Amino acid sequence: MLLGDLLQSWSDDLLTDGLRSLPPENGFEARTEFERMRLDVTIGQYLDLVEERAWRVVPEEDALLRAERVILYKSAKYSVEAPLVIGARLGGATDEQVDALRAFGVPLGIAFQLRDDLLGVFGDPSVTGKPAGDDLVEGKRTVLIALTRSMMPPGARRLLDELLGDPHLSPPQITLLQNTLRESGAVDRVERMIEANALRARAALKAAPLVERDNLASLIAPLTQRVS
Amino acid sequence: MLLGDLLQSWSDDLLTDGLRSLPPENGFEARTEFERMRLDVTIGQYLDLVEERAWRVVPEEDALLRAERVILYKSAKYSVEAPLVIGARLGGATDEQVDALRAFGVPLGIAFQLRDDLLGVFGDPSVTGKPAGDDLVEGKRTVLIALTRSMMPPGARRLLDELLGDPHLSPPQITLLQNTLRESGAVDRVERMIEANALRARAALKAAPLVERDNLASLIAPLTQRVS
Repeated sequence: MLLGDLLQSWSDDLLTDGLRSLPPENGFEARTEFERMRLDVTIGQYLDLVEERAWRVVPEEDALLRAERVILYKSAKYSVEAPLVIGARLGGATDEQVDALRAFGVPLGIAFQLRDDLLGVFGDPSVTGKPAGDDLVEGKRTVLIALTRSMMPPGARRLLDELLGDPHLSPPQITLLQNTLRESGAVDRVERMIEANALRARAALKAAPLVERDNLASLIAPLTQRVS
Repeated sequence: MLLGDLLQSWSDDLLTDGLRSLPPENGFEARTEFERMRLDVTIGQYLDLVEERAWRVVPEEDALLRAERVILYKSAKYSVEAPLVIGARLGGATDEQVDALRAFGVPLGIAFQLRDDLLGVFGDPSVTGKPAGDDLVEGKRTVLIALTRSMMPPGARRLLDELLGDPHLSPPQITLLQNTLRESGAVDRVERMIEANALRARAALKAAPLVERDNLASLIAPLTQRVS
């Protein structure tokens, strides 16, 4: 716990050092965004813990919404939107430019995280560096899992629930679970969600008051179609 | 843990809000001191945990130095020096003024904490709001305890060690421990340390480039001779 406090303190100290040579107003705006990001991540982490307990008792139709809320706070805002906005604020961006970056960054962050959900189950261990079916062994309550459960008949769902998070899953059991996810239609649906969010990000750039529109657009493919 | 992260984040957010209307340079200096204080307290808290395990195995002559180090980092700097310096930086103090405040604040903070050690053992519960002999029941490794141990014959020390930190200490046992501490001479020595640090704080004000010298001097008595 003290190490965590120390690391959080040091991240602030680094920011303070970095802001020393910048126009104060830019520094204030950048710090405010940094603080918002930190708050969002903490809340997302909390929601994630709550969901780990809640998912067995919430109605299927709520589970997806709740899983989406977790990825929004725990990773989507943190991975793309906040870094873009912090950088923009450091450079003295206008509020209109920041709004455009948010409209681009939030869907891109969601697509990025949905790809992560798929890689966590289907990723090639030699490329991702993680064990096969890592999220299945850990029993993570991802959007992919919430979708799969909502699309399955109750009997099959019970079998899925029994296997998910079992630390001793055998390779054939992992393959069985991977097939179950694919056959439920959830994998296709997550792919379509990734595609829709990538399109939303691209559309947000259309009329954006940003000179770097093309460079930003070039981030979409690597973040949403990555294999590791 | 997340609540701790959240509280640490909020304290930063409050500081950022508060600095918004001040000259940026003052704000930077105040924040740097705030960050130093936070680091010191975290390190002090860590040292305190280490000492809780270490005190049985370190030589008597080191124990006092180590207990003094803990109070310096865990509370002395945090209770007086840092608040004074943060306030001074907010007001645009010079480095000479800040040095003078440190020379005043550090010994005063040490005296404040040594008084706390005494109140934790001898404080009147109806005034302090804490149970009688609170620190004895908790088994805190204070400077007072380190001194007592170093001034006792080994046989008596063993009895002291056995009783300290026993959550079921009876009122007669607490009285016995209080008498042991007094008779060892440690209480007198802590009183002399408080007096010496109070004098050091007063002396630091003598030639200090501070217009509020008299107001600062008036803090010494209430902080070092308090009963709660």
